[in-house]
Amino acid sequence: MSDTAWNHLTTHITELQTLAGVHGLLQWDQQVNMPPAAAGLRAEQNALMAGLVHKRLTAPSYGDALTALLPSTDPVRRASAKHLKRDYDRNTKLSADLVDRLARAQAKGFQSWMAARDADDFKVFVPALSELVALSQEKAEAIDSSRPAYDVLLDEFDYGTSTATLVPMFARLRDGLTELVGATRDAPAVPAIDLHVPLDVQKRINETVISSLGYDLSAGRLDMAQHPFSIGLGRGDVRITTHLYENDLLNGLGGTVHEAGHAMYEQGLPHDTLSGTGLNVAASYGLHESQSRFWENTIGGSLPFFHWLSAQLANEGVKLTADALYRAANRIEPGLIRISADEVTYNLHILLRFELELALFDGSLAVADIPDAWNAGMHKLLGQTPNSGVDGALQDVHWSSGAFGYFPSYTLGNLYAASLGVAMEEALPDMWEQVGQGEFSHILSWLRTHVHHHGSQLSAPDIIRNAVGDRDPVEDLLSHLWSRHGALYGVSRME
Amino acid sequence: MSDTAWNHLTTHITELQTLAGVHGLLQWDQQVNMPPAAAGLRAEQNALMAGLVHKRLTAPSYGDALTALLPSTDPVRRASAKHLKRDYDRNTKLSADLVDRLARAQAKGFQSWMAARDADDFKVFVPALSELVALSQEKAEAIDSSRPAYDVLLDEFDYGTSTATLVPMFARLRDGLTELVGATRDAPAVPAIDLHVPLDVQKRINETVISSLGYDLSAGRLDMAQHPFSIGLGRGDVRITTHLYENDLLNGLGGTVHEAGHAMYEQGLPHDTLSGTGLNVAASYGLHESQSRFWENTIGGSLPFFHWLSAQLANEGVKLTADALYRAANRIEPGLIRISADEVTYNLHILLRFELELALFDGSLAVADIPDAWNAGMHKLLGQTPNSGVDGALQDVHWSSGAFGYFPSYTLGNLYAASLGVAMEEALPDMWEQVGQGEFSHILSWLRTHVHHHGSQLSAPDIIRNAVGDRDPVEDLLSHLWSRHGALYGVSRME
Repeated sequence: MSDTAWNHLTTHITELQTLAGVHGLLQWDQQVNMPPAAAGLRAEQNALMAGLVHKRLTAPSYGDALTALLPSTDPVRRASAKHLKRDYDRNTKLSADLVDRLARAQAKGFQSWMAARDADDFKVFVPALSELVALSQEKAEAIDSSRPAYDVLLDEFDYGTSTATLVPMFARLRDGLTELVGATRDAPAVPAIDLHVPLDVQKRINETVISSLGYDLSAGRLDMAQHPFSIGLGRGDVRITTHLYENDLLNGLGGTVHEAGHAMYEQGLPHDTLSGTGLNVAASYGLHESQSRFWENTIGGSLPFFHWLSAQLANEGVKLTADALYRAANRIEPGLIRISADEVTYNLHILLRFELELALFDGSLAVADIPDAWNAGMHKLLGQTPNSGVDGALQDVHWSSGAFGYFPSYTLGNLYAASLGVAMEEALPDMWEQVGQGEFSHILSWLRTHVHHHGSQLSAPDIIRNAVGDRDPVEDLLSHLWSRHGALYGVSRME
Repeated sequence: MSDTAWNHLTTHITELQTLAGVHGLLQWDQQVNMPPAAAGLRAEQNALMAGLVHKRLTAPSYGDALTALLPSTDPVRRASAKHLKRDYDRNTKLSADLVDRLARAQAKGFQSWMAARDADDFKVFVPALSELVALSQEKAEAIDSSRPAYDVLLDEFDYGTSTATLVPMFARLRDGLTELVGATRDAPAVPAIDLHVPLDVQKRINETVISSLGYDLSAGRLDMAQHPFSIGLGRGDVRITTHLYENDLLNGLGGTVHEAGHAMYEQGLPHDTLSGTGLNVAASYGLHESQSRFWENTIGGSLPFFHWLSAQLANEGVKLTADALYRAANRIEPGLIRISADEVTYNLHILLRFELELALFDGSLAVADIPDAWNAGMHKLLGQTPNSGVDGALQDVHWSSGAFGYFPSYTLGNLYAASLGVAMEEALPDMWEQVGQGEFSHILSWLRTHVHHHGSQLSAPDIIRNAVGDRDPVEDLLSHLWSRHGALYGVSRME
């Protein structure tokens, strides 16, 4: 019986993942290649593929196989059944009617968010956003009415964490970041430099950098798109896009390295050993983000990295010293926009969104009051006040699709990355010398072993705990930021 | 009842076409973008999508709806049911076992053909090709044992024609072409010219030309690939690829215009009015080819076209006179390779393949004897003898996938194109002046009305008959070739 169920399961999961990869190609193509006139057709194609995937995700025979396999003594089968049953239960607890209303509200939400941005008026977005909040409440209740709605929503992105864990951790991080930003505010500014490099040269440099880091271009590709993203379509096909800026080499390169970090995680997943188990996927959004941020910031913002990069640039006739690059990359500039925030202030942007989401779901904040709360929070956290909705509460796409509980993953990723960095320095004592020489294979290999190869056999917190031991990630992140950015600004942490 | 069946049908066909478009995107991506390491994954994705399409093509409820709609009094419903029932019957008459054996034989056939080309030894290909011929016989018998196998196979590509029609028509064409080639053989050669143009300039010229012809780039795109092809993924998304040669502007441009011809047909199909009917598709392979060849040769090989092109080239700093381009494009050069053949000798290549296919399926030719028959035929038709299999019977991919009955479509396309050209000259007396000025919209509009907008409401022969009247396409083609190529070589047709 168990073997029959297992065969059914692995066949089913293989088909599901294959379908999801095809759906992924539609999405990639939409951002990279799709002719404008195909928008309507693509919407139909996406809906059809999503329907085929959903039908298989909620198939009763699949649920039966999962139930049969839960008591399995084989560790992989048990882990697989447990992992998949969680999603199966989530998916089957939502009525077809609720799924339909959510899909419509998401479509309406995106349109309405775009219209609100065009009008620069949050009020335009209020009705659709209110509906999304209400439906998300309803969804959370349908899935598990015994827990706070926001915790249930968090599960979708970072299973294994909770509001009870995040609130005190993020509060400590907020205090520490505020202290660092305050200390550097009165220090002499680190001046900007001219980072103008022709786009064709940048394209070559970006490819050189990511293939040196270990992104396998024969199992992926780099394209230009409006927004950088990475997408895993399955084994041997993990693609990334980037956006380059003629006058800002580091902006484009940072985005490319970030996406390559995501993509190297996908390329390192256990496609061989755990094929068909559903465990050959990333463990959580936060862990995914830890990989992108580790490469983008921990490695890609380090002085040894810029020593190596400076030599690569020289090969292309671009003269920028390692020191100049390092200083330019690590300037602290509190601003209004999350996606252009520096490494230090970035998390303050996330903490604001987290606080607002918590308040929306515990009922203490009304949707219509978001702009005031946003502006007050920005002023308090970053000393900035938005002039417009586009610079404020309308800047992110996430809420327009009802993705509440997503934002914390970004900061979790930064926290995980910090602890991974400390553990790696201990395991690879000469890692910074290697980085200076453009030798990244031991670093990637360490991540493969300690993070990627687990797939989702373990939860993200367990993977991190196994990899770094019993560490305090808030302290690791603050310590990293003080030693890099504090030092750059000549300020020291108070004891 | 009929309304219920019709609703079922249109929903089913819409889903089928949407799935087919998604499958098409996989195939396009495979030729244009796919990373090499994704080959295995892509094979699984293709198989899965083909299976989803096949399941819907043979669904009993779909067959029931078709049967219910056959006696419909509404002309669109009746045409739709009749058209779709034909395919449904073909598909359901094949046992799952035969479909499976055919799929395996096709996969093996392609591998074996590649291996035979590597070894330049037709014998390597004989076992796999023999199996494909036998299975195609079996398939034809399963579909309709009352007709000759080859006629049943022809239906798949050009429904509405038959061996009885093609044999005498092709024999007259062969005699006429042989006469023209013979007459030009002793005439002074038309010399080649230097057609070297940088690839980036060619790319721009190709885009200018096809968008001027009427290919809508906002509903499609032009990419570089190993082989030129066009693919319609649905409404608003018809893509083409080409291959450009730095030293041969006209070779690349001819291929691009050919594919744009296919694509303009797809863009002109009645997606609005006949959505969901299954009639919003091309009527036949031959008719499809008539559109590509019309634009490539009738228009794209004409002196007025080169007058316009010469001016476009001058804008890019390329100096080539209309006369020089015209002469270079219309040289007759009997050779061994079909895909690089000129407009005159091209059809002789097809006629050889047609004769061999007929002989294979009436049992008068054994697979092992193909190379001898090929070489003898080439010598007789074109005065050329291949030195190798790659230059001879191994040059085309078609047989390796069991696509017997496909080749005649190419010559049917040239015949249809010739008659369309004559009818259009009568309908648009100043069409050549328009071409000379780069004004192609009336020509495209005529094709839209007389060919594209019909979709497959009528068979290809009926569409052509309605468009051109009761004409002799062999005479139209020969007359076109004598007046263009004969004149270029200074020879006249014998009365």
